[in-house]
Amino acid sequence: MSESALPTLNTWVEIPKNSDFTIYNLPFGVFKNKKLSPRIGVAIGDKIVDLSVLDQEGFFSSLFLPEGIFMNDSLNELIALGKAQTKKIRERVQNLLLEENEELKNHSARGKVMVNRKEAEMLLPVKIGDYTDFYSSIEHATNVGKMFRDPENALLPNWKHLPVGYHGRASSIVVSGTPIHRPKGQFKDPDMEKPAFGPSRRLDFELEMAFITGKQTKLGDTVSTGEAEEYIFGMVLFNDWSARDIQAWEYVPLGPFLGKNFGSSISPWVVTLEALEPFRVEGPIQEPEVLDYLKCEKSHSFDINLEVFIQPEGKKASKVCTSNFKHMYWNIAQQLAHHTVNGCNINVGDMMASGTISGSTENSYGSMLELSWKGSKAVPLEDGEERKFIEDGDTVIMKGFAEKDGIRVGFGEVAGQILPAKN
Amino acid sequence: MSESALPTLNTWVEIPKNSDFTIYNLPFGVFKNKKLSPRIGVAIGDKIVDLSVLDQEGFFSSLFLPEGIFMNDSLNELIALGKAQTKKIRERVQNLLLEENEELKNHSARGKVMVNRKEAEMLLPVKIGDYTDFYSSIEHATNVGKMFRDPENALLPNWKHLPVGYHGRASSIVVSGTPIHRPKGQFKDPDMEKPAFGPSRRLDFELEMAFITGKQTKLGDTVSTGEAEEYIFGMVLFNDWSARDIQAWEYVPLGPFLGKNFGSSISPWVVTLEALEPFRVEGPIQEPEVLDYLKCEKSHSFDINLEVFIQPEGKKASKVCTSNFKHMYWNIAQQLAHHTVNGCNINVGDMMASGTISGSTENSYGSMLELSWKGSKAVPLEDGEERKFIEDGDTVIMKGFAEKDGIRVGFGEVAGQILPAKN
Repeated sequence: MSESALPTLNTWVEIPKNSDFTIYNLPFGVFKNKKLSPRIGVAIGDKIVDLSVLDQEGFFSSLFLPEGIFMNDSLNELIALGKAQTKKIRERVQNLLLEENEELKNHSARGKVMVNRKEAEMLLPVKIGDYTDFYSSIEHATNVGKMFRDPENALLPNWKHLPVGYHGRASSIVVSGTPIHRPKGQFKDPDMEKPAFGPSRRLDFELEMAFITGKQTKLGDTVSTGEAEEYIFGMVLFNDWSARDIQAWEYVPLGPFLGKNFGSSISPWVVTLEALEPFRVEGPIQEPEVLDYLKCEKSHSFDINLEVFIQPEGKKASKVCTSNFKHMYWNIAQQLAHHTVNGCNINVGDMMASGTISGSTENSYGSMLELSWKGSKAVPLEDGEERKFIEDGDTVIMKGFAEKDGIRVGFGEVAGQILPAKN
Repeated sequence: MSESALPTLNTWVEIPKNSDFTIYNLPFGVFKNKKLSPRIGVAIGDKIVDLSVLDQEGFFSSLFLPEGIFMNDSLNELIALGKAQTKKIRERVQNLLLEENEELKNHSARGKVMVNRKEAEMLLPVKIGDYTDFYSSIEHATNVGKMFRDPENALLPNWKHLPVGYHGRASSIVVSGTPIHRPKGQFKDPDMEKPAFGPSRRLDFELEMAFITGKQTKLGDTVSTGEAEEYIFGMVLFNDWSARDIQAWEYVPLGPFLGKNFGSSISPWVVTLEALEPFRVEGPIQEPEVLDYLKCEKSHSFDINLEVFIQPEGKKASKVCTSNFKHMYWNIAQQLAHHTVNGCNINVGDMMASGTISGSTENSYGSMLELSWKGSKAVPLEDGEERKFIEDGDTVIMKGFAEKDGIRVGFGEVAGQILPAKN
């Protein structure tokens, strides 16, 4: 599928070594800066291509786009144009950035088009309608099952038959860089006679990725695994902050609620499925065989390296986890097919997260719950620090990138600092 | 609190006997008809007061409303004006409809203002941001616990300490009258060796009410029980359609998902908290004592009669349930205070449903699951029909009204027909 080497593309934009934002990537985001109101851009190296200026200068005239489509504080309207159009926009931008293309390179508007990424503030890229969180890593589900249920029967009976998922809170999804206050809530540890109220004592991250839907369905309609990628615009990194003590007390029988909905953080640049195409890999073998509606004609797994760092306030960041998106047992096509098989309708801008992405080795676990094995052992950081869970002032940084044949397509990062609980 | 009798109000509008839409009610909704584009109205008797026409004719001039505020396909912008304003709008409408007020009664625009309700199509009244479903009836939670867990310990340990809730799907909430296809999905009955896929065999309703938030908070902010009603605009009837077989197989450990998100139906008229004020009653005693953040200074329970009817296609409707909103163990102020105590932010137009409202008698159970006791006994309908669950072609109708001292404030109904599963 992705066996053929990509054609080498050269750009006139300077691309720093190991940049996530190469000519092969070109993710979409929403930004503003001191002078510019919110608008849509594409990241390349340390720059942002201001698509609204490109549009004003007539560079998209052959695409007949709606007026002002890039002068927008979310990608929703752009995405809603449909994949045929957004693909053409991305290809046009790629073409304009090629070394051999002089249209923009030698254009008087070039300075206005190319905005410094450092000076830009990234905004939440989409207005999220509904948010769903899956639970699709077999390693994560097994670890949690071992810790909280039966080590011999760690996976619940339904787990290998369907991509378990639940609805989350859309309103509290924030863009990278937004600090989050430690949540307060009820908890009752096994040794407590009755529940108590206070700041969470076991605050955690969950390393996830999420896809953003780009096409709506009507109530009653379904999306097959074969059609699914037509409905997926792109992906982001997703930190599903979790308060383990609140979650443990509240979640029976209807699932996680306040242990999750105090905040989730996403990376600002939406990497398109087109950019991820070269990194498509075979997914894990699913045994027992899945029901027909979950079967796939082709692979929908992607080889994306993932890393998590913890940075205590004023100190160095330490890597605590190295994982990969390809570990996911259930893929994005199966997730979307399952979600809609009952007729549940989706809208442009819905977000569906993977669930914690753990690998099989101890350093690949995607949460402190697993890394510290329920708080039973400290995870060493640099500078003599150690952590069982996240402390006030800590910043959690997640990075993700795909790399093959010298070609890199990355997500940048999602970072968020935990502030003390509010009084 | 509600001891003093209401002043008697007479209106020049003809109010049919037992109308839910009296001069004391005046709920808000969004409607259109063959001639009129979507707009906001207030129900009175068999009429709708077209607020956009009232506004054009200058009847709200003293309120300095934003231009075109009523020419809207949702109530969100109106609600976002704040309770001080929406209260004044409702009071102004009430005043204009009084017998002794001749402003509208004798105005040339009266015919244009008063639209026939029968000829109007009601639309979904709000753009719903996030939807949460609680589980706040102790009778319902006890019944479910007896059926599926331990009859001796039916309530889970957390139930009396916090209003258990979970996130639901906002996109699939539809207005009364919208038919719903029977969902397909996975199920695995205890006697099955492996899961199967097909149309749900145990389709159910859940009798609920939901409140709509009218004021937003920022991430990190909390709303106390004392402040909660300032954040609640009004209420609707809510049918939380449920596929019991799909739900039973999928819901461990993260809660209901496809067993619920194929559709939920709401009544079109949003009854304001102001209209419900006369029906405020003491809630149940909560023992053990709740944590401080869940304590209430005053009562937040309301005496609202609820009924459920099943109407097989082409036959008479049969009442199968008579319940009351006052049975709720956890009230709306506690629900909202709990939801936000961790800093979860709310937006205007969020919907929070009560959970199934069951009473203590067998005819007051708010779902077929309970009425047929897990399908173990048939519920008799008129014309010799009987039901354990909902069959194709059945329409489920829920009604709700409060009544006191000859004053009636009702919700109308939420009705929905189940169509066969799609091929």
